[in-house]
Amino acid sequence: MKINLEKIINIVGKENISTDPGDLLVYGSDSSVHEASACIVVRPGKIEHVQKIVIYANSKKIPIISRGAGSGMSGQAVPIKGGIILDMKRMNHILEVNLADVYCRVEPGVVDDDLNHVLKSHSVFYPPAPASSRVATIGGEIANNASGVRSIKYGAVRDYVLGMKVVMANGDLVSFGCKNRVEAAGYQLDRLMVGSEGTLGIIVEATLRFIPIPKLRCMGTAKFNKLKEAGDSIAEIMASGCQPSLLELMDNIAITAVNKAMDFGLPDVDAILMFEADGMVKEAIDFEMKKIKAICEKHNGFGIELSYDAKERTRIFSGRKKLFPSLSKYKELFACTSLADDMAVPYSKMAVMAQKIHDVAKRNNVIMTAYGHCGSGCMHTKILLDPTKNKQWDNAKNAVKEIYDFVASIDGSTSAEHGIGISKAFAFKKEKHDSLNFMHAIKKALDPNNILNPGKLMDAPDDWVTATRLRYKHN
Amino acid sequence: MKINLEKIINIVGKENISTDPGDLLVYGSDSSVHEASACIVVRPGKIEHVQKIVIYANSKKIPIISRGAGSGMSGQAVPIKGGIILDMKRMNHILEVNLADVYCRVEPGVVDDDLNHVLKSHSVFYPPAPASSRVATIGGEIANNASGVRSIKYGAVRDYVLGMKVVMANGDLVSFGCKNRVEAAGYQLDRLMVGSEGTLGIIVEATLRFIPIPKLRCMGTAKFNKLKEAGDSIAEIMASGCQPSLLELMDNIAITAVNKAMDFGLPDVDAILMFEADGMVKEAIDFEMKKIKAICEKHNGFGIELSYDAKERTRIFSGRKKLFPSLSKYKELFACTSLADDMAVPYSKMAVMAQKIHDVAKRNNVIMTAYGHCGSGCMHTKILLDPTKNKQWDNAKNAVKEIYDFVASIDGSTSAEHGIGISKAFAFKKEKHDSLNFMHAIKKALDPNNILNPGKLMDAPDDWVTATRLRYKHN
Repeated sequence: MKINLEKIINIVGKENISTDPGDLLVYGSDSSVHEASACIVVRPGKIEHVQKIVIYANSKKIPIISRGAGSGMSGQAVPIKGGIILDMKRMNHILEVNLADVYCRVEPGVVDDDLNHVLKSHSVFYPPAPASSRVATIGGEIANNASGVRSIKYGAVRDYVLGMKVVMANGDLVSFGCKNRVEAAGYQLDRLMVGSEGTLGIIVEATLRFIPIPKLRCMGTAKFNKLKEAGDSIAEIMASGCQPSLLELMDNIAITAVNKAMDFGLPDVDAILMFEADGMVKEAIDFEMKKIKAICEKHNGFGIELSYDAKERTRIFSGRKKLFPSLSKYKELFACTSLADDMAVPYSKMAVMAQKIHDVAKRNNVIMTAYGHCGSGCMHTKILLDPTKNKQWDNAKNAVKEIYDFVASIDGSTSAEHGIGISKAFAFKKEKHDSLNFMHAIKKALDPNNILNPGKLMDAPDDWVTATRLRYKHN
Repeated sequence: MKINLEKIINIVGKENISTDPGDLLVYGSDSSVHEASACIVVRPGKIEHVQKIVIYANSKKIPIISRGAGSGMSGQAVPIKGGIILDMKRMNHILEVNLADVYCRVEPGVVDDDLNHVLKSHSVFYPPAPASSRVATIGGEIANNASGVRSIKYGAVRDYVLGMKVVMANGDLVSFGCKNRVEAAGYQLDRLMVGSEGTLGIIVEATLRFIPIPKLRCMGTAKFNKLKEAGDSIAEIMASGCQPSLLELMDNIAITAVNKAMDFGLPDVDAILMFEADGMVKEAIDFEMKKIKAICEKHNGFGIELSYDAKERTRIFSGRKKLFPSLSKYKELFACTSLADDMAVPYSKMAVMAQKIHDVAKRNNVIMTAYGHCGSGCMHTKILLDPTKNKQWDNAKNAVKEIYDFVASIDGSTSAEHGIGISKAFAFKKEKHDSLNFMHAIKKALDPNNILNPGKLMDAPDDWVTATRLRYKHN
């Protein structure tokens, strides 16, 4: 693929491109298992830069991959077909915080936590909170329809996007959606962009709504000697109309990982549930917490502790918050891979899903943990394996297949919040088999030369193991 | 247009088609000003019927218009290009209420109130509540992205659709979305269908989430001697982080209409605000009501009454609820037309928008009222005119143009909840000018023969006055 460097330099300046092999290596992977090589990294500083680069790329049919923090877990930002990486992190300005009309406008490279830091001074917040909020950019979150611990009460990114500006594959700058809370004005192209993983357009500005920060939060934990009983508690909490603002599961592997990595002193039980209610008035929070506590007790939850204290809540939750990095230290030489890491599961199947993860791990001789934002129907796992051994990758492949076959059998969905990218494409294609041709039709209609993040979603290879190099040394 | 009757009869049976001129007249209009003639009305009873009819229509390039209750106000269901009306009301079964997994599956012809009647017995509800919920079907609500008095707190239809089954233009039956609360699995084609007004596919089943019914509601009213002060109250309530479950404006025309039609005895003031807070715990509701009341008082609201009593709440709200039919009786021989009837407006512009409506009415010698779900940014009006006089239609046309020019100038959007159809297409096309070609591309990709509700949205004529016959006798 021949890229005219001078042309790109003329657009963004020499200081905003790189063809350095080290840079290309870093930008060739994300938080998935994948790795590939782009030809160039380009850092646009404004919308016009993006338009000019896209027009050039489109004229030469060069792939163009827009990238936020690279915290995606499914290979969404991996340049599987080479081409231009568009690093959007220079476009990181909060353009407007309109308190009167209850929206903000941001550039795509704004980091989630940075936005919420500014909003906090006005007593409001933007609720989608992926665990990666310290680095995740708003553009990436939209492209991925991210969510997180708060989705149980507050929903996902799609519930906060009011509108956006997008550079389309032909270089056109268009506005989708609006700035108002409700709109019924034809095709919701902003909602189509949400979750499209950079394959339909490049988001260059987003209009987001925000909501008041709850004045009070109460957090609780319950311990369980049986994983199933924790799962059953989740199901009953959600089916009985409780409205927690957080409901997290940690299984024994997760507990052990955090204790090992951080000497955290979590109790060595089969499972812990963490739950929270928030609001403006203590009586309303107490009402929710009482119901949730009673359900946990009914399912033999014990050692239940509740706290309104901010420091204590932070301490309780820090174990969960540090889980992902802790898993990397679970076993020497083992890597914590984002494989089968995310699935949407009906509440009534949460317990069997958690058990299934353990069964699959055992059968395939890998280590897997069951945890996640189960109250929003989101189950997570990770596969811990020795990445130097080919056999372990074979095992992982089997395990991933078994997991997603089971997810399909219980009416779940391939991804709750981590997206499809490359890693989950095989299960996604199976799940969405009847609509793939319509996805292709839309992709072709909006990006006829297939330059925007090609080779992802319905166009990703069927076998994730061989789709790209794996970013681990192995035999 | 030649339609093979026998072919259609073979699909649905003789008892489920009609070419009776009376039926064609009724099915030729909806709640808009428009009227046109279909060739045949067909009442499918199951998905397979819809598929077969669509396959036939597609092979002959015959327009096919799916229709719910016909309560749309913008001409969405008017057969502007003739063809087949698909009356979906026979497909009115609630297929599943899954309390454990917190979703229900319904056929598209299920009426909103009927669904909520069933859900109520389980203490849950489906919140989008258009004023027409007594007749509006779920299919129509989705196609239109409907909302209503509850959208301020609970959002619109798009916030409750989890997934759907759709018959595409080629007859394919596809599943979009899923049954789970969160999903991040590629193109949100279910969200694309929401608001597409039957132009991209025919919704034959919907999976909706529901939420717990609040145990308590408190409703309040405040009177204002200046419309502006009511508008300013709305703006401050929304900007200050209050969380009402309803916030409605009625101006003096609306008040007079209800009093005239129903001898209702509302106070003859410039404006009334109705507000409500709901929840599970009285203290939380009192907290909201106290804040809202204080803001109304600050803006010279007076005679503020609050009530938790269900009967009293119903009585207070019945004036608002009966507004639409009351407007038809405001002035003898005058018709209440759904023109410029709906717009999304920034909160800070609510007061000037209300005033603008009055100014425009005066200048153009028609009667217009400012009312609506202003707390969700949704302003309504209607144009009351003598439909027998051509001059009045000219005036209406001017008024509509002035309204939407103003909406555009204050960063509003053409429709908050009534949709685009035919009536609002000219303003919609202006607002969305930069993305019309992408809407066309998507339409062509999914419906290459343009059979699905053709001549709507971006394809509607520029002049609504001459787009179809008007369903009023005039010179």
